[in-house]
Amino acid sequence: MKLVNYRLLYDFAEERIGLFWKDCIVDVASAYKEYQKTINAPSIYTLPSNPTAFFAQANVHIELLMNAYKYIQANTVKATYKMEDVRLSTPVPNPSKIICVGVNYADHVKEMGSEISPFPVLFSKFNNALIGPEDDIHKSSLTEKLDYEVELALVIGKKASKVNESEALDYIAGYTIANDSSARDLQKRTVQWLQGKSLDHSTPIGPWIVTKDELQNPSNLSIQSYVNGELRQSSNTKHLIFTVPFLIRFISELITLNPGDIILTGTPDGVGMGMNPQSFLEDGDIVKVEIEHIGAMQNKISQQ
Amino acid sequence: MKLVNYRLLYDFAEERIGLFWKDCIVDVASAYKEYQKTINAPSIYTLPSNPTAFFAQANVHIELLMNAYKYIQANTVKATYKMEDVRLSTPVPNPSKIICVGVNYADHVKEMGSEISPFPVLFSKFNNALIGPEDDIHKSSLTEKLDYEVELALVIGKKASKVNESEALDYIAGYTIANDSSARDLQKRTVQWLQGKSLDHSTPIGPWIVTKDELQNPSNLSIQSYVNGELRQSSNTKHLIFTVPFLIRFISELITLNPGDIILTGTPDGVGMGMNPQSFLEDGDIVKVEIEHIGAMQNKISQQ
Repeated sequence: MKLVNYRLLYDFAEERIGLFWKDCIVDVASAYKEYQKTINAPSIYTLPSNPTAFFAQANVHIELLMNAYKYIQANTVKATYKMEDVRLSTPVPNPSKIICVGVNYADHVKEMGSEISPFPVLFSKFNNALIGPEDDIHKSSLTEKLDYEVELALVIGKKASKVNESEALDYIAGYTIANDSSARDLQKRTVQWLQGKSLDHSTPIGPWIVTKDELQNPSNLSIQSYVNGELRQSSNTKHLIFTVPFLIRFISELITLNPGDIILTGTPDGVGMGMNPQSFLEDGDIVKVEIEHIGAMQNKISQQ
Repeated sequence: MKLVNYRLLYDFAEERIGLFWKDCIVDVASAYKEYQKTINAPSIYTLPSNPTAFFAQANVHIELLMNAYKYIQANTVKATYKMEDVRLSTPVPNPSKIICVGVNYADHVKEMGSEISPFPVLFSKFNNALIGPEDDIHKSSLTEKLDYEVELALVIGKKASKVNESEALDYIAGYTIANDSSARDLQKRTVQWLQGKSLDHSTPIGPWIVTKDELQNPSNLSIQSYVNGELRQSSNTKHLIFTVPFLIRFISELITLNPGDIILTGTPDGVGMGMNPQSFLEDGDIVKVEIEHIGAMQNKISQQ
């Protein structure tokens, strides 16, 4: 299933959880209600329409929704909307954490002039940075060196503390794409990267979350980015130095993860900073990021 | 005013906003209702009892509460509790951000073998780290080098984006004390500090938030820490390299701050890592942190 956070364009509606299905958006809470009416033994559960509430118990809600998915596929749910009538927002608008993994592809380590770290390098973004798949990336006037970074992003499905690697994938709700946009000048002006990584309105996540039943192996996905149509990054998640199960185990030993938390797994080589000559993003540029079995998302750069 | 997050011990009650007044806790929402009944022109407002809801509009709510404060001081509010009947939690349990400033006292820069940074060094913690003033600091089995750091903490009162230094203090709700406990081995094992800074149940904040009407100058406060009664850190916030107004201006240029967000302003010299020989915290140790005009808080180390 492809879960989106959408709102209807024509009535300033609130953000709601939807399913991307047959090039339309199906409202999840409504579809689930409709499905419940068709079965003999409806459960007492309803599904929340609010994305934050939905992801607060992500795996529980996804499991309930799975029951209705065949019905949704076989019928036309009443609350179905065309893409031109909706706008997609960032799938989880208020994660309690956004944890980023740095220098996690060997070729990117090399181009950044770094060394392979014996442990995952962890840093963070805050929610102020998050934008949706159709939003512009704001280029702050504070930076001259805005760069793109395509990354596989994990969304946590249930509370995770001290999780074994063998069970790690159970704790994931699904997968999405992040563009971990980075103001290299601000990132490097002190020894900690945060200030270059969490600028307002800088980090698109989306277009949807592919639930893990549809994407069972996150460790073999081709991953690309393009600037104005030119291929810049092209790799495969099989080249991650620290794999998805390793990261869940490693992070959950240190930090208890909550449903809806987002982990960005790192970017491959090909960023603008690694080019010769270096090339950074300018007003009007279009960055497209793409991951196999998830989809693609493109965002325009908007000078502030 | 001294705002606390408290719960009654005898009925598993929820966390509520209270006022520390005359060695007791006065329930804020109840006191405000009681006050409203005594005036001729009661406003339509009520104050939320839930700490997260209270701090979601911190300055608005504090201003309303100010109206009732004289009444509270002159009368015995019905919902008043003795300290032995309550337990204090971390004042803002779910900030959207915890931003920490590193190496912000010159003497601490020196003891850490660092250099004075031309810009504030920013990093983060997550909410999993937060504990209350009466809780034990968990010493994870992953660290052998747990250290203390007393810090002046700012709580943001209203949304702050691109704030001038001259107006910066208007955006603050109040001040509290943080012990930015740091697992030095984990902090230093990669180039980013996050994993040593955000261990579960590691960071006490409290005991209360002193609202800014009571503490008008954050830049001249003596600040101390003690381990098992032995003075370890002793300085004054006048020695901050980047002052409180500077930090608000600097951070809000990069990152929009929300009400309830917490900024830790850095620690002075005297940490265990800077001692000769180095000295780290062990199971059962008591760390006391203290800031002039705010108060003191002490927490026991508990090996996990």
